[in-house]
Amino acid sequence: MIKKWNFPEDRFFDPDASQKKIAMELYESVKDLPIVSPHGHVDPKLFSRDSKGFGTPADLLIIPDHYVFRLFYSQGLPLEDFGIQRKDGSKEGIEQDHRKIWQRFADHFYLLRTTASYSWLAYEFKVVLGIEEIPDTENAQNIYDEIQEKLNSPEFKPRNLFDRFQIEVLSTTDGAADPLSIHQEIKNSEWKGNIIPAFRPDAVMNLGSPDFKKEINQLSGISGVDIIDFKSYIQALESRRRFFKTMGAVSTDHAVVSPLTSELTESELDRLFQKALKGESTEADQAAFSGHMLNEMARMSCEDGMVMQLHSGVFRNHNHMIYDRFGADKGCDIPITTEFTRNLQPLLTKYGNDPRFTLCLFTVDEYTYSRELAPLAGHYPAIRLGPPWWFNDSWNGMSRFFDSVTETAGLYNLSGFIDDTRAFPSIPARHDVWRRVVSNWLAKMVVRSFIDMTDAFELANMLVYQQPKAVYKL
Amino acid sequence: MIKKWNFPEDRFFDPDASQKKIAMELYESVKDLPIVSPHGHVDPKLFSRDSKGFGTPADLLIIPDHYVFRLFYSQGLPLEDFGIQRKDGSKEGIEQDHRKIWQRFADHFYLLRTTASYSWLAYEFKVVLGIEEIPDTENAQNIYDEIQEKLNSPEFKPRNLFDRFQIEVLSTTDGAADPLSIHQEIKNSEWKGNIIPAFRPDAVMNLGSPDFKKEINQLSGISGVDIIDFKSYIQALESRRRFFKTMGAVSTDHAVVSPLTSELTESELDRLFQKALKGESTEADQAAFSGHMLNEMARMSCEDGMVMQLHSGVFRNHNHMIYDRFGADKGCDIPITTEFTRNLQPLLTKYGNDPRFTLCLFTVDEYTYSRELAPLAGHYPAIRLGPPWWFNDSWNGMSRFFDSVTETAGLYNLSGFIDDTRAFPSIPARHDVWRRVVSNWLAKMVVRSFIDMTDAFELANMLVYQQPKAVYKL
Amino acid sequence: MIKKWNFPEDRFFDPDASQKKIAMELYESVKDLPIVSPHGHVDPKLFSRDSKGFGTPADLLIIPDHYVFRLFYSQGLPLEDFGIQRKDGSKEGIEQDHRKIWQRFADHFYLLRTTASYSWLAYEFKVVLGIEEIPDTENAQNIYDEIQEKLNSPEFKPRNLFDRFQIEVLSTTDGAADPLSIHQEIKNSEWKGNIIPAFRPDAVMNLGSPDFKKEINQLSGISGVDIIDFKSYIQALESRRRFFKTMGAVSTDHAVVSPLTSELTESELDRLFQKALKGESTEADQAAFSGHMLNEMARMSCEDGMVMQLHSGVFRNHNHMIYDRFGADKGCDIPITTEFTRNLQPLLTKYGNDPRFTLCLFTVDEYTYSRELAPLAGHYPAIRLGPPWWFNDSWNGMSRFFDSVTETAGLYNLSGFIDDTRAFPSIPARHDVWRRVVSNWLAKMVVRSFIDMTDAFELANMLVYQQPKAVYKL
Repeated sequence: MIKKWNFPEDRFFDPDASQKKIAMELYESVKDLPIVSPHGHVDPKLFSRDSKGFGTPADLLIIPDHYVFRLFYSQGLPLEDFGIQRKDGSKEGIEQDHRKIWQRFADHFYLLRTTASYSWLAYEFKVVLGIEEIPDTENAQNIYDEIQEKLNSPEFKPRNLFDRFQIEVLSTTDGAADPLSIHQEIKNSEWKGNIIPAFRPDAVMNLGSPDFKKEINQLSGISGVDIIDFKSYIQALESRRRFFKTMGAVSTDHAVVSPLTSELTESELDRLFQKALKGESTEADQAAFSGHMLNEMARMSCEDGMVMQLHSGVFRNHNHMIYDRFGADKGCDIPITTEFTRNLQPLLTKYGNDPRFTLCLFTVDEYTYSRELAPLAGHYPAIRLGPPWWFNDSWNGMSRFFDSVTETAGLYNLSGFIDDTRAFPSIPARHDVWRRVVSNWLAKMVVRSFIDMTDAFELANMLVYQQPKAVYKL
Repeated sequence: MIKKWNFPEDRFFDPDASQKKIAMELYESVKDLPIVSPHGHVDPKLFSRDSKGFGTPADLLIIPDHYVFRLFYSQGLPLEDFGIQRKDGSKEGIEQDHRKIWQRFADHFYLLRTTASYSWLAYEFKVVLGIEEIPDTENAQNIYDEIQEKLNSPEFKPRNLFDRFQIEVLSTTDGAADPLSIHQEIKNSEWKGNIIPAFRPDAVMNLGSPDFKKEINQLSGISGVDIIDFKSYIQALESRRRFFKTMGAVSTDHAVVSPLTSELTESELDRLFQKALKGESTEADQAAFSGHMLNEMARMSCEDGMVMQLHSGVFRNHNHMIYDRFGADKGCDIPITTEFTRNLQPLLTKYGNDPRFTLCLFTVDEYTYSRELAPLAGHYPAIRLGPPWWFNDSWNGMSRFFDSVTETAGLYNLSGFIDDTRAFPSIPARHDVWRRVVSNWLAKMVVRSFIDMTDAFELANMLVYQQPKAVYKL
Repeated sequence: MIKKWNFPEDRFFDPDASQKKIAMELYESVKDLPIVSPHGHVDPKLFSRDSKGFGTPADLLIIPDHYVFRLFYSQGLPLEDFGIQRKDGSKEGIEQDHRKIWQRFADHFYLLRTTASYSWLAYEFKVVLGIEEIPDTENAQNIYDEIQEKLNSPEFKPRNLFDRFQIEVLSTTDGAADPLSIHQEIKNSEWKGNIIPAFRPDAVMNLGSPDFKKEINQLSGISGVDIIDFKSYIQALESRRRFFKTMGAVSTDHAVVSPLTSELTESELDRLFQKALKGESTEADQAAFSGHMLNEMARMSCEDGMVMQLHSGVFRNHNHMIYDRFGADKGCDIPITTEFTRNLQPLLTKYGNDPRFTLCLFTVDEYTYSRELAPLAGHYPAIRLGPPWWFNDSWNGMSRFFDSVTETAGLYNLSGFIDDTRAFPSIPARHDVWRRVVSNWLAKMVVRSFIDMTDAFELANMLVYQQPKAVYKL
């Protein structure tokens, strides 16, 4: 039985008539605001002169999206069947026929109902691609044809879609040794899309990586700094940050298992650094170095004004069988308990009062919201709370976030929405969920007389548009 | 003032009219489905040829139910007053008059208002027993008479109640050395009630127990395997699993303090096992052995297809005064923080991808739902999430569960409802709460346009009836 | 644009008409009940014969309230600008002009919208002070004048406000060595306000404090016990408890980082105590001693009947820069993960069954509610759960509390509301939030048929008035 998408104007809003009326007025006032996207993982090549575009429907919606194929895998469907490429490059057993991949996706699409991915895909099908029917076994190939035709049309070239989405600014995430040549090419082009880089030095800070020496060599090469000790290493990082800033970067990004921060002496740092160059780092070395380097990054942010983003608390590549065959980012990263109060104290007591410093905190452990994150954000001038991240980026996840942090931290200590996605067509879908949740939540506050309508209109605009620009100095 | 039970058709549903209408339609479609009960602790003797039946009203509703007398105890009423038997068999100070026990229960029944037990008892009084009045001081003895009369009637013989409850299958929980003779007797009888055993080897896996040697001897005796080392121990366990399977068992059950899993070498295992036989195990030995044995159980489940159930995170017998006087299961088991991501990783990375394996996870630490359990279930094909367990088996507990896990894990990675009760008359009451919460929650999703009515009818049926049968291969 | 406070009768209630009608009936029945305030930090000097009164509007609402200035600080406004006094007494850079402080407060008042402080201040402005307008840049000085005029009037003398607030009893919190002379003076006066002390011996139990020796000397002096060893130390504490009881105290209060409890031997205790007098305590000494002393306090509570209050889980003075300049209680205390099940077990298994003992537990870690606190309170006769504390003392914080604990612990194991404030004018505001949340939550239970209206009226009265009197034996 073929079914059509049901997309009433009031979707996602609580049903009470008085509250819904307010929510709809608020949503009306923010739904067409430009998209500000200060952090994400879209590949800038998509917007380069010789962009290959989006490829097939499977390339667009399935193969790159671990949020989606993860769920099929959890129901016993092999990743090979969805065209996920093997780490070793072997194509054996990997489905190459995108029509077959698409058919499987449509056959099992019903499994996704009630997930966040289902709500984003609904928007992408209906609003972005103009597909009226919900994919299933029967209509799969017709929908494939319909989407492919659109993807081949000029309207669906990435730059045109970027413009249609009204993206005011989009930040990518880039390694410390990245030459940013694609960013330069886009800057030089006639196209006016505002795509900026973000500085993510994880690879050159991870002492324990087998590639550490190689990464440092690349950093040395591109920075022109001969990295022979901790001091020259820091100089090279500072040099790259300066370069990123000239290219428009406004932020740095740091992914760590634990948000531990600490201060080591220069001689200890040098010892750890030299050990790492010889490939002899222990896990303890790595953790201690990482703790110090977060402090170092905070210092540099005070000096150069780049917003520091901290993403912590994920056990990456939990499933060795999947990691060994398919590599990273295949849906088997699992959150762990995260502790902020004690771990961030050394950094915060030193830099958290500095008016030049902004630290955006992200967590996949929502059970820190009211206990740690809201009280920290409600005191330290440097802290802003990123929106619900990853598994929490959803209607309920956002609703719980607002209910849990705002009474203690207020709304002005939030960063506004960040989509953090590598799936470009999901960007407007994700921002739309935020706009709807913001409207619904503020309507809840109005109808209970915590705030009035004037407040609500102001705060909706702030949370959707002004705040991310202010926090990220855009 | 005597009050009557208020049992409107729309009880437990959110009040919004549009949502409630949908919830009632959904509930109407699932309320009369047969009960599938794949895990619980009802004593099979209740259904044997020479069953003693339910006894007095106090035997039925008070004395065996630690969910209930726990609450009276917390308000300062001694357990002795409710006829709870002492561990040493002494009757001194223990109330023997069931009418007096019943009177105390009725006198203090008001203390239970707003608890989950109150909502189950309401159903048991009103629907199961046909009692219209809420027990209080005044009507206590009349209600006692009324119930006793019913319990003496043929309609209230356990087998007849089983049939009236429309229980399609009921699993008990049985020790590894249990001969399952009652199960055999029920199979052999003319009665068609489907009661199956479940394999729970905790007693023969708990190295530190003072009875370990005795338990192993029993296991040896019943399995016919001469248990002299770790290898023969494993053979005996495998042999018992085969026997349980022939008796209809579809699952195993494991209660551990921490869900730690690990792999030890055979020589290390043998050393730990021999030490235990001599009664010399340390706590560390016990923890290490338990971690390995979970892995071993996962391996066996891959081989024999029995669903592995894991119940962890409870500090048993927290109150020594109560434990010393009354023994286990007296309401003083208290949950502790539980960690799944790191602890289960060794087991999952090895067996979690096996299509033959199903692992049902239960927790009394709801603060793992969105952080750990939903992401794990949304990736590993083996994992299914059990419903809210024990203290979380309640209207709010279930509502939070759906709100917290479904956006990440979807609905198809849940197990459906499991009542896990030893209180037989509470079974329909508990399943009714699940059916009402499922209907209410799906209605919430429909009225917000996350899914449509066709989806909702399908998913309600799935969550109430199809899913537990599919997950437990019934 | 000047805006007026919007204070409809139904504020804070959920919008569903059927539920709201019930909520309003319930609220109507409890809104005018006397205030029972069994724990807080109001300075008793406010009510002494020579009370200085409330001072300026800034003295009343800004300078003493770290809940408020914390939020301005988090937005980059220096504490100096709000007249917060420095630890060293220096006035350099500290704003002394209260009109300027008030202007800044009004200029930035919009930043507080949606916080708990905003809802309390709304009540204080509108109901306590009769100010119709919401403070902003424009009306700031007019409002200042209006408030100052009121504060100068007899109606706003503290004793008169106490009477107007209908406070039946107010407990202060007082050091073990406090002579309670102000309390004595109030008792002796013609004024009938019932202000009682509470015994808080933290300063004389904190081995690691640099002032420990000094504190012990004071304790020795006031108790008349020559404190030379652990035994005499205990005698001095017991003597002070007796004195506090004669002065009307009904409770003790203990602030600890972790709720660890333990039992040490007398010789070990003596060794730790002697070390502390020499200023040689380690952190481990301090933790062990604190663990034992909680047990000791439980024993004394069994003997003298004083309710034991335990506040744990806060990392005090997290921000060294603020602490070094301004001292304690400046908004930089941040919660940490708290563990009750294991930590309290030694104390509970020994004293938790004693009918003479009441232990009120408070937490800023709400992620222990359903896992630990509700199961503990639903079993041990001694335990009562304090209401949501500090950062959780808010509309959502309270709503989550009721939803998380009541199904397991029932309502009779709660303590009722405790305002725990040092901001006297916020007392009726805080109690009003509780009364509204209680009414809203009970209405939610009625409209879903968990309880009926008779139950709800009874329970509302119990939660607002009877329960705190019963629990605190007032």
